[in-house]
Order: sequence, then C-alpha cells, then structure tokens
Amino acid sequence: MARYQIVIAYDGSDFQGSQRQTRRGCQGGRTVQGELEQALRSLGWQGRSVLLAGRTDRGVHASGQVAAFDLDWRHGLTALQCALNALLPPDMAVRQVQEAPADFHPRFGAIARRYRYRLFCAATRDPLRERYAWRVWPAVADLRPLASLWPGTHDFAAFGRPPHPGGSTRRTVYHAAWEQQDDEWTFDIEADAFLYRMVRRLVYLQVAVGQGRLSQQALATALEKAAPLLAGLAPPQGLTLVAVRYP
Amino acid sequence: MARYQIVIAYDGSDFQGSQRQTRRGCQGGRTVQGELEQALRSLGWQGRSVLLAGRTDRGVHASGQVAAFDLDWRHGLTALQCALNALLPPDMAVRQVQEAPADFHPRFGAIARRYRYRLFCAATRDPLRERYAWRVWPAVADLRPLASLWPGTHDFAAFGRPPHPGGSTRRTVYHAAWEQQDDEWTFDIEADAFLYRMVRRLVYLQVAVGQGRLSQQALATALEKAAPLLAGLAPPQGLTLVAVRYP
Repeated sequence: MARYQIVIAYDGSDFQGSQRQTRRGCQGGRTVQGELEQALRSLGWQGRSVLLAGRTDRGVHASGQVAAFDLDWRHGLTALQCALNALLPPDMAVRQVQEAPADFHPRFGAIARRYRYRLFCAATRDPLRERYAWRVWPAVADLRPLASLWPGTHDFAAFGRPPHPGGSTRRTVYHAAWEQQDDEWTFDIEADAFLYRMVRRLVYLQVAVGQGRLSQQALATALEKAAPLLAGLAPPQGLTLVAVRYP
Repeated sequence: MARYQIVIAYDGSDFQGSQRQTRRGCQGGRTVQGELEQALRSLGWQGRSVLLAGRTDRGVHASGQVAAFDLDWRHGLTALQCALNALLPPDMAVRQVQEAPADFHPRFGAIARRYRYRLFCAATRDPLRERYAWRVWPAVADLRPLASLWPGTHDFAAFGRPPHPGGSTRRTVYHAAWEQQDDEWTFDIEADAFLYRMVRRLVYLQVAVGQGRLSQQALATALEKAAPLLAGLAPPQGLTLVAVRYP
C-alpha cells in the first residue's frame, strides 16, 4: 500500500463540482471526486474518500487539480495513469502520477494555488468560446492596471467567505496579472489560499470597473477597509484551477 | 418579403450535422438546419427549408456557415439578429445578418470555402482541449512543408468523394497552410469547393506523414495520379467551417 499524488484535469461543464455530495445522506449529482473514486474502486481501492487539493464549484474547470489516495498497486506509475485514464469519463483525465509520503495531504500540504479566468468582449453570443470563457459586453477598458491591487497580504472579507464560519479572511496573493489578446482577457492569480468564490468575485468587480460601473477607487477602498461592495459573481465557466504548489 | 443572408456559428458536438435529415421520411437527429428553421418559424417563417452554404458532418463546428431564407420582417436587421439569437439554443448563434438579392443562394453563389483543422500532440487525454481539437500521439514532425502540396487545380479523387456520384473531383485550392504554436497545429485551407470529407482526409494523411507512417512522396504521387491511398479520417471535432466567400 502506498500513497499516490495525481494531477487531474476536467471540463467542469457537466459536473456538480469537485466534492462528492453525500452530507446529510443526500446523494448529489455527478462530481469529480465521485468519478475518481469509482475509477479507483475498479482498481481495488477500498478507501473511504480520496483527498482533493481545492474545491471547485459546479461548472468550474481544472487543468491542475491535485488528488491523493492510498492504493495497493504493483504495476508502476505509467500503468496506473493509463488504467485510470481508461476508466475515467472523457471529460476527466489524469495528467501526472507520482508516489507521495504516507502523510501527504493535497489540501493541507499546499502552499499556493493558481487560478485562471478567461473572458472575451463581444456583442453577440459565440458558441465556440462560451464553454470556457465569460462573454462580456460592453467591452472593458484596459484591465491590466487593476491587477496591481491584489498582491500582498490583505483581509479579503469584501471578496468572499472563509471556508468555515468565523475563519480568517486574510490571504496572501503572490501574483496577479491581466493579459489581453485581441478581444480576449485572461486573469491569472496565485495565492496561498482563496476564500469561497473569491476569484469570481474579483473578476466580476474588475469587469465592473472596466465597464465604468464602479470606480477603481471604490474597489481599492473595499480591499483596504474589508467592506462589502456591489454584489455579483463572474460565471463559473470562465474559471480554471491551473496549479497547486507544494514545498 | 425579403431574402436574408446570415452568418451562423455552432458547436457541432451535439448536432447530427448541418443538414436536416428527412430523406425517405425518416426524422433524424438534431441538426443545425432544423434548429434554425424552428427559430424562424417562431418569427412567422413558413418556407419549406432554409438554404445552407456548406454541409458539415456530425460533430464538425462552424464559425462562418452561411444560410439564407425569405422572411416578412419589418423591424430591422439588428432586431432580426437579436430575435434569432434569443430563440436559438446556446450551441448555435447568428453572427451577422444582411439583406440579399432575391435570387441569392448561399451554396451555388459561393466562390470559396475556408476550413480550419486543429490538432495537438500529447501522450495523455486533455479534457479541456479535445472538444475542439484532435489529440495526436506520437508527436508529428514539422507539417508546414506539406501544405505546399495542395494549392492549385488538381483531381482530388484520392482524397474524397464528389457530392453526387459521377461528379467532378477537380477542385482548386487557393490557400493551404500549417501553423504551429507549442504543441498545437492548425491547418487552414481555402478552395472553390471541397469533396466529401476532403479536409479530414487531407489532415489524416498529412499526420501520417508527420508520424512517419507514410512518405511525403507517396502523398504527392496520390495527388498526381488521383490514386487511392491509406484509408483513414481525422475525427470531426477538430474541424471548423470558418468562412464562405461570395463575389
């Protein structure tokens, strides 16, 4: 028996989220955790639940989610990856497999998470892009200057809830940047951890500034005073969990 | 009553193809034409069938398909586009609307069609890219030199069937190019018209050369002699009908 650490990617469109939903006995919809556990059971896994680095909401994608589980497996890492990919549905795949220390925990051991949010500015619907991006109209002004608001340690209470009631709302953002290519905008952000829905709140509010519905000053003040602001949330399909970092 | 010419985009994943399937009385699956006709009927359209520029197979996408229909509409072009987009399903949208001469036919009037095929080279599945691209492994060698085989007027009998039995297999390719970005390859090709499945055949065979399973010379000879070659077809999800040109 050994502990394995794997990197998984999924198209979140047809998932109810990453976490299996069995609290209070209600069997919920299709989840990333549920599909992974089902694949592992075919390989003889008998654990109670796999561990995931980050919770992703319904509709949110991942290219670098991390999971861990204990398994008795004698055929090598490559064969384990192939076996899992053969068992998983098409909208989910294992990108990497490695052995990990027996006490490795993908969530508590992580020192940083990186998310990417994609949006594009267009007056009409675009079926070939809206699965992985948020369509925004009217077009936004230059969003790049707004990224410099976030790096550093701040109380982000204005931008999301802590995972547990009464938990700290202080987080350290290591990196934040907007990039533009034609009508597409990409927001990359890395932090030690994120509040619940924080990235989608930050994107929504920066777009509000970019569309002239909110001043940059109001956004800066909300961060400084940790005071609530304009409600709203960028939709999930633009968001991807890109990477989780370990020491 | 006026004739309208519209540009439509669709994600082909959940369509049985572009053309309504009612031949021999069998009511087929969901099609682009069927969805467009249903939306138009809500606007009072009573025609027998809309006209489409190009037939796209099951699973093939479009960003620039062209359709035409006659409609009695008094609210302007912008309102027509908005109304159609409100009525169409999320995987289909109208990108442009204009009035056309009463005898405009999107297929017979077209002087060129442009397709794009996307593929990427990766050893493992990638759920976030495989909806719009073909995953190829082992990686291909440089495909760019192969593009120069196609421009000009040739008998493409080795690479597809004519739309009607006994029809000509001569076509004129105006432009063909491969581009690479990291592990992604894009094939753009424009011709006066295409044989049935010609782009997917051309891509499949060029990839076979790029993977060393077929020589470039064999491909050139097949074109020159119009002689059949290695069977095989690149999958539909990598293909997009990008544009249709008119005089």
